[in-house]
Amino acid sequence: MIKLAENRYGKCRVRVVRIKRDRPVHEFTEWTVEVLLTGKFTECFESGDNSLIMATDSMKNTVYSLARDTGAGTIEDFGLELTDHLVKTNPQIDSASASIKNVPWGHITVDNIAAPSAFIKGGGEVETSEVTRQRDGAPTVTSGIENLVIIKTANSGFEGFIRDAHTTLPETADRLFGTAVRARWIYAAGGLPFAEARCTVRNALLKKFAEHESRSVQHTLYAMGKAALEDVPEIKEIELTMPNKHCILVDLTKFGKTNPNEIFVPIEEPYGYIEATIRRED
Amino acid sequence: MIKLAENRYGKCRVRVVRIKRDRPVHEFTEWTVEVLLTGKFTECFESGDNSLIMATDSMKNTVYSLARDTGAGTIEDFGLELTDHLVKTNPQIDSASASIKNVPWGHITVDNIAAPSAFIKGGGEVETSEVTRQRDGAPTVTSGIENLVIIKTANSGFEGFIRDAHTTLPETADRLFGTAVRARWIYAAGGLPFAEARCTVRNALLKKFAEHESRSVQHTLYAMGKAALEDVPEIKEIELTMPNKHCILVDLTKFGKTNPNEIFVPIEEPYGYIEATIRRED
Amino acid sequence: MIKLAENRYGKCRVRVVRIKRDRPVHEFTEWTVEVLLTGKFTECFESGDNSLIMATDSMKNTVYSLARDTGAGTIEDFGLELTDHLVKTNPQIDSASASIKNVPWGHITVDNIAAPSAFIKGGGEVETSEVTRQRDGAPTVTSGIENLVIIKTANSGFEGFIRDAHTTLPETADRLFGTAVRARWIYAAGGLPFAEARCTVRNALLKKFAEHESRSVQHTLYAMGKAALEDVPEIKEIELTMPNKHCILVDLTKFGKTNPNEIFVPIEEPYGYIEATIRRED
Amino acid sequence: MIKLAENRYGKCRVRVVRIKRDRPVHEFTEWTVEVLLTGKFTECFESGDNSLIMATDSMKNTVYSLARDTGAGTIEDFGLELTDHLVKTNPQIDSASASIKNVPWGHITVDNIAAPSAFIKGGGEVETSEVTRQRDGAPTVTSGIENLVIIKTANSGFEGFIRDAHTTLPETADRLFGTAVRARWIYAAGGLPFAEARCTVRNALLKKFAEHESRSVQHTLYAMGKAALEDVPEIKEIELTMPNKHCILVDLTKFGKTNPNEIFVPIEEPYGYIEATIRRED
Repeated sequence: MIKLAENRYGKCRVRVVRIKRDRPVHEFTEWTVEVLLTGKFTECFESGDNSLIMATDSMKNTVYSLARDTGAGTIEDFGLELTDHLVKTNPQIDSASASIKNVPWGHITVDNIAAPSAFIKGGGEVETSEVTRQRDGAPTVTSGIENLVIIKTANSGFEGFIRDAHTTLPETADRLFGTAVRARWIYAAGGLPFAEARCTVRNALLKKFAEHESRSVQHTLYAMGKAALEDVPEIKEIELTMPNKHCILVDLTKFGKTNPNEIFVPIEEPYGYIEATIRRED
Repeated sequence: MIKLAENRYGKCRVRVVRIKRDRPVHEFTEWTVEVLLTGKFTECFESGDNSLIMATDSMKNTVYSLARDTGAGTIEDFGLELTDHLVKTNPQIDSASASIKNVPWGHITVDNIAAPSAFIKGGGEVETSEVTRQRDGAPTVTSGIENLVIIKTANSGFEGFIRDAHTTLPETADRLFGTAVRARWIYAAGGLPFAEARCTVRNALLKKFAEHESRSVQHTLYAMGKAALEDVPEIKEIELTMPNKHCILVDLTKFGKTNPNEIFVPIEEPYGYIEATIRRED
Repeated sequence: MIKLAENRYGKCRVRVVRIKRDRPVHEFTEWTVEVLLTGKFTECFESGDNSLIMATDSMKNTVYSLARDTGAGTIEDFGLELTDHLVKTNPQIDSASASIKNVPWGHITVDNIAAPSAFIKGGGEVETSEVTRQRDGAPTVTSGIENLVIIKTANSGFEGFIRDAHTTLPETADRLFGTAVRARWIYAAGGLPFAEARCTVRNALLKKFAEHESRSVQHTLYAMGKAALEDVPEIKEIELTMPNKHCILVDLTKFGKTNPNEIFVPIEEPYGYIEATIRRED
Repeated sequence: MIKLAENRYGKCRVRVVRIKRDRPVHEFTEWTVEVLLTGKFTECFESGDNSLIMATDSMKNTVYSLARDTGAGTIEDFGLELTDHLVKTNPQIDSASASIKNVPWGHITVDNIAAPSAFIKGGGEVETSEVTRQRDGAPTVTSGIENLVIIKTANSGFEGFIRDAHTTLPETADRLFGTAVRARWIYAAGGLPFAEARCTVRNALLKKFAEHESRSVQHTLYAMGKAALEDVPEIKEIELTMPNKHCILVDLTKFGKTNPNEIFVPIEEPYGYIEATIRRED
């Protein structure tokens, strides 16, 4: 017998710009919101009965409308507000989740003074959050960072790994170690100062990456995750994804030159990939 | 206490081109392979001991090397062979998975004859497969399609949905229904004629999409998945992801013209998103 | 003295879907239009006087509106119509150009029959056209192809090139030759059967690529362009851009295996790049 | 008669990472280089004679090799050195041009101290340069910026434009004005302090954008270009490209709310596009 199993639906890439302009120095925020719902949707799939379906267009409108009134200063707080609204106004749904991305913008600086109403877009780094709320029970709040592109030019080696019939990689006590970190951490409870916690986690990750005597990506990834958990007690677990951004040493001997780890070619593919979750246990 | 929990590592975007040239008409294949391993890696993370680590560079070499000898004609068969090799030669790992993508290339046709050694790249549609093999027990084989971009210009409506304070979308009995299907199906057993099964699934999905009297994306998604399961008894379940590729009707009344569903603007964002798994149950 | 020199403005990425549904078998077209104008705009730049500025939003509306009535069956014909309209209704402009891209869609085939109202998007290949019309004088019409990704697995070598202090590339009489052709040809006159001419040019390019005994990318590029000019007398010149899509032979000797030009790694960067114009002269 | 006309060839996307590590605080640079040559290549195209062809692979090697020894601190200086080398060692070429992009990386800051050997990638903004050198005569040096994404939330209107049959855009005295600036300026002479000049141009552009009472994109673009020419007398001309990054005001009246220019939807397409060259004339 053929049956509907797991299913979700919602609206993706709802972008909203919010400006606070009732003050001398404007504030500018750009969020990208994704909403996903689960609920009693079997009839919709199996017989085309839409009577329990909230249109995804209405989800989009809800985001715009709530953004107008919200006092939320972080994507975590707005996710909590949005999912609360969705669960309360939609008895047919079992859960609502809101994933929000924030690309930071800063004021343009003119002669060392921040221009009050002109902004410049930040780098490739993205702040993320995901709030999931079941109808009953406390919401789950995660925060994260995507595309934190970093590299170490010292204190990184890779030695003592397995050498088998397909091993050609030489061991090295000194290599470049570049990566694009994706981090995602889960809070043990809501109602936290999310902006401050985010800042502490980011600093812990960067500090450990910069200072670690790295024997492998795994070794440094674990140390980074551990540091974040140690610095922010409200975090239950952190998931880190660290693809290698490989830099290949160029052989310049053919041109009569040495290359003491100074000239490299960065390559995009193939790339090594490490992911792990570090968890606080009782 | 802080501890390492789930973790995986491997090599991504290992691209390999394989040419069969010992025959009058050449064969050309381009695969992109991803390998991920789980195993006894705690020491590597926690203390930087690499003695149980197979370098991801060696995984890359393994892909190239096996590609030279393999008789596999499908990405599913090559995934079975690759994971079998990895599990057998690496006692330290618990599982190996291989995700492979195939972008089809065809012969260039000159005067209605296929040129024997010249090829043209196929469209945006990608064939996928994922094989996961635990050390003991049978491997899991999934096949899939990504980026199957299709649209219906008739027999599609969306009516009778919830109208609440944030609803502005009008009901319609006649709309465009475009999507980029991602499908992924799991076989109940290995050792199948994978190419033939893939072809049957793809045909079932397209036939149902073309002919369905659609009341919603959900309604058609379910019908498509059901059709695939009905046509290929070896499939246990199918997961379908169908983002809306919205086309917005242009209001031409401002220019003194009618627009009887003829002129639309396609938009990329925001977009509705539906995902569901359809499963065969006993 | 500081002065305004060359300048242009317009609207980019105006996407429009047009459906013909007043017939048993629907027609589906998706075009992406770009409009650029030159004219008497100095006051606008220098003093902010907008009285001679057609809003780019109005250009977008013009595209939608003309698309409703047009009988144009090709992007070239629609470009001629659009630029004619713009020049006639805007005395302040000196020239109008319309660049249009067409991504082909085909009917979904069900049991070998084309579904009348269901379509599937074509591959990565894009049809292009650019029409430029000065206020007085005949319009210039170009047609083109982008992203025609092709590869030869025989009859391609690269030998006898300069060997200097930085040369490490070995000569070879047998290599893969892959490229993503961009072609752009200029017609000597308007009013041609553009669809037919496009088809003839594309066939000429592919036939020559498939059959050529290639000594270099330059050698084959020239032969392809020459073939197009020979087959379509209405073409005045053709510009061809052929980046190398390099495939690197894998060294398998380290694994005890031969590799008689069968296993390659495709790389995206760096890449060789050749561009040339082939012209008919009197 | 069919003949070869304009042609160029070279190597694109040659990425090179250069590290200075013989000092307590490392330096990290990542450049992407493109080399294009013109010369006496007719025989190569027409008859497949490669004897005057420098392989593009050798160009790549030249970049790596020169990067090892160079003292160049800017992309402009390295472009001058690279083109000088190419012209001097290749009598068969008429001109060489080098386009180089620099993505800035900065030191990771730990407890307000720059980590000496750990770096974080800068934002989306890219520094560019193009040096073209004919065999005889002085080289042309241009510098530029790509993807400088900025927005104004005050002092921007668009009024008084043409209202015709296809105009629906309302006039406004207060709108968001966002853009992604591409700038490219030509120096009147070489041998300048390029890093300092680049910094002055960038500041001039940003300052004028932030402070301008904008009546249109054209109006502000011209003012920005003029400011750059005024601040850096060595610049002969500047070309500015400013696509609109439109933000659409959301109509919240349907939800019983006002929207005093606070909530917007950013859209990617279609987009207005303005380009102009501002030139110093005698």
